[in-house]
Amino acid sequence: MDLEVLAQEVLERCQRLGRYSEEPGRLTRTFLSPPMRQVHAELAGWMEELGMTVRLDAVGNLIGHYPGQAPGAPLFLLGSHVDTVRDAGCYDGVLGVVLGLALVKALEGKRLPVALEVIAFSEEEGVRYGVPFLGSKAVAGRFEAEYLDLQDAQGQRVLEALREFGLEPARLPQAAYDPAHVRGYLEFHIEQGPVLEALGAPLGLVEAIVGQSRLEVVFRGQAGHAGTTPMALRRDALAGAAEWMTLVEREARAEPGLVATVGMITARPGAANVIPGEVQLSLDVRHADDEVRSRSVAHLVARAQQVAQRRGLELAFQTLYEQAAVPCDAGLNSLLERALQAEGLPLHRLVSGAGHDAMIMASICPATLLFIRSPGGLSHHPQESVWLQDVAAALRVGRTFLRMLAQEEHPCST
Amino acid sequence: MDLEVLAQEVLERCQRLGRYSEEPGRLTRTFLSPPMRQVHAELAGWMEELGMTVRLDAVGNLIGHYPGQAPGAPLFLLGSHVDTVRDAGCYDGVLGVVLGLALVKALEGKRLPVALEVIAFSEEEGVRYGVPFLGSKAVAGRFEAEYLDLQDAQGQRVLEALREFGLEPARLPQAAYDPAHVRGYLEFHIEQGPVLEALGAPLGLVEAIVGQSRLEVVFRGQAGHAGTTPMALRRDALAGAAEWMTLVEREARAEPGLVATVGMITARPGAANVIPGEVQLSLDVRHADDEVRSRSVAHLVARAQQVAQRRGLELAFQTLYEQAAVPCDAGLNSLLERALQAEGLPLHRLVSGAGHDAMIMASICPATLLFIRSPGGLSHHPQESVWLQDVAAALRVGRTFLRMLAQEEHPCST
Repeated sequence: MDLEVLAQEVLERCQRLGRYSEEPGRLTRTFLSPPMRQVHAELAGWMEELGMTVRLDAVGNLIGHYPGQAPGAPLFLLGSHVDTVRDAGCYDGVLGVVLGLALVKALEGKRLPVALEVIAFSEEEGVRYGVPFLGSKAVAGRFEAEYLDLQDAQGQRVLEALREFGLEPARLPQAAYDPAHVRGYLEFHIEQGPVLEALGAPLGLVEAIVGQSRLEVVFRGQAGHAGTTPMALRRDALAGAAEWMTLVEREARAEPGLVATVGMITARPGAANVIPGEVQLSLDVRHADDEVRSRSVAHLVARAQQVAQRRGLELAFQTLYEQAAVPCDAGLNSLLERALQAEGLPLHRLVSGAGHDAMIMASICPATLLFIRSPGGLSHHPQESVWLQDVAAALRVGRTFLRMLAQEEHPCST
Repeated sequence: MDLEVLAQEVLERCQRLGRYSEEPGRLTRTFLSPPMRQVHAELAGWMEELGMTVRLDAVGNLIGHYPGQAPGAPLFLLGSHVDTVRDAGCYDGVLGVVLGLALVKALEGKRLPVALEVIAFSEEEGVRYGVPFLGSKAVAGRFEAEYLDLQDAQGQRVLEALREFGLEPARLPQAAYDPAHVRGYLEFHIEQGPVLEALGAPLGLVEAIVGQSRLEVVFRGQAGHAGTTPMALRRDALAGAAEWMTLVEREARAEPGLVATVGMITARPGAANVIPGEVQLSLDVRHADDEVRSRSVAHLVARAQQVAQRRGLELAFQTLYEQAAVPCDAGLNSLLERALQAEGLPLHRLVSGAGHDAMIMASICPATLLFIRSPGGLSHHPQESVWLQDVAAALRVGRTFLRMLAQEEHPCST
């Protein structure tokens, strides 16, 4: 089978699915939104063409099953998510699902000692309910009962959204896989960063997914008239926040592998002629080593406290989210490494700075990710793209990986 | 007449007018809003009790006329504005109008060589249409025809708002006073700042109103994933803006009398896990010396350019508003100074950091302001207040000022 032709089909299918959006003129497709039904219909059609049986689990994950050589063969999972951020590109997540199906197609009907399942996770981005990984958490048996009460911007709870989509919340426990039956999970995903492009490499082997801390930080001072309050009598919350932001950047640059980002800032009351009395900021800190991350977060909070104290401001902060770093599976990575070598492709190891479904799946089975170069490092953006040659390379590595996996399972089967 | 009793009435009347709001539970009364009619009804009643004739001009200024000793006597004007910011206190502006009426009351029917007019300006804050001083601009003959096309948040133009209020836009030119007939303008206003309180002084003589520059500054970089973009590969617009804000504060502190404020900031796209690609900020710079202000603005813009260049960001800026400093009238101030001395009150001169109607009135007649201490420096805030003793002091100074003014006009009249 010509993998370049297949890669072309993968790109076309991603673009095709990118038309199913809940917003006109741009791609936004959140958890259980109406266009998700159209995506499911397309995917289910493609799965059936490959002789896969299709099921929808209780959290809205669409799963195609491709039987193994024998009944009860262990499962090997390929997948990613089919929800998107707002104004998204059409490859983030979707590419991993479509590419998984292409790898089944590349088998040309041949059975393996493992059964393959391709999972299109219903939720990974956290856009609609603020909590990410709802799809993979259900599969990993980590879907908390309290998630059912989360409300979206319209006040609709997860429970109601599931029912409205035709799903049965009572069946959520059955969405969990039995770890004893799962051989592993492999996710193909665009890098969403500039590193592979800077290295000139099509693919990257992910060694670990960084740990992440997300905090909300609030500086409180005294609002005042911008004209009538002399500089010396001010307690300007934004001036304090600005000083702290320069320290955040400086300290993150000084710590190898650390990224620290202030992505959101709100100054209140927010008028050109009023000194800000309160500033709220987000802080996102990531590192592959949890100890380095924890130490850095503590240090940045201490810096904020120093800035606040010196300026007569109050400081409040809370940790909104904390996620430990997750190492990828060494066994699967070793196979992928051999597959890359066998295909004559350069081997680049990287750390994933973003969370992925693989991170959740790692709690029930060996799991890893293969990154595909992101032109311009662009993602979460309508111009997000991927190169045909890189997708073809991923297909070659994936096909060889499955062959090697099959050999490992049943040394005589291929 | 017991001026302390009168001062009590002044405070009660301000509080009474503070109940007329367009928003439930807080005071917001913008240009030509429905509650303005109730304020006018109250003021007109009080004016009529004092034997004043009442008129509403074409821009909605309510004016009470108290005749002088002779027909055609020159006019002396007292006044301030009766519109408010959102969630306002009840003294900013209103106090000057109510206090003007109290000074007429303190005359106990006596006529002066000048006719007194108390003007309740309809618009000073710029809340509804973004352009301030619409009331005093009409009185000063500076109401531009283009103002009629300004639109509020609901898309209603000034022209329609005037008509809906029952006013005749065609009569706007007649709202302008003939400078030849105006002896002067005196405005009593809360300081809206902490300086008099820090000095322990009830009143302050305003020597000048600062000049003001307002700019919009935009830093543009590259949005990117907060996890996947290493620090060294970022073009973070917010990190650049933060660095610049620290410089703005530092340079303003170093220049005596200068205030520089960033009051508004928006980071886009504005998600915790996305590096900001664009940040928009407001910059407000004020100084009593226009040359110092211009030089400082140029310097701060140059600093922004340096920061942007070093970080590979684009910088855009535009001046939204520029207002030259306005000196208060030396003759009126000399009279006020004598009145303060006569009343045994300390003399403190200050610069007004905020614009006031007096600034506009200065273009047609001698004009000045007397500031009344603001407890806590608080204004544009529901807890804005003023002390009874300070209002009584202002009434004493105002009464003596009018007596001295009368003597100056007709040395034999008192």
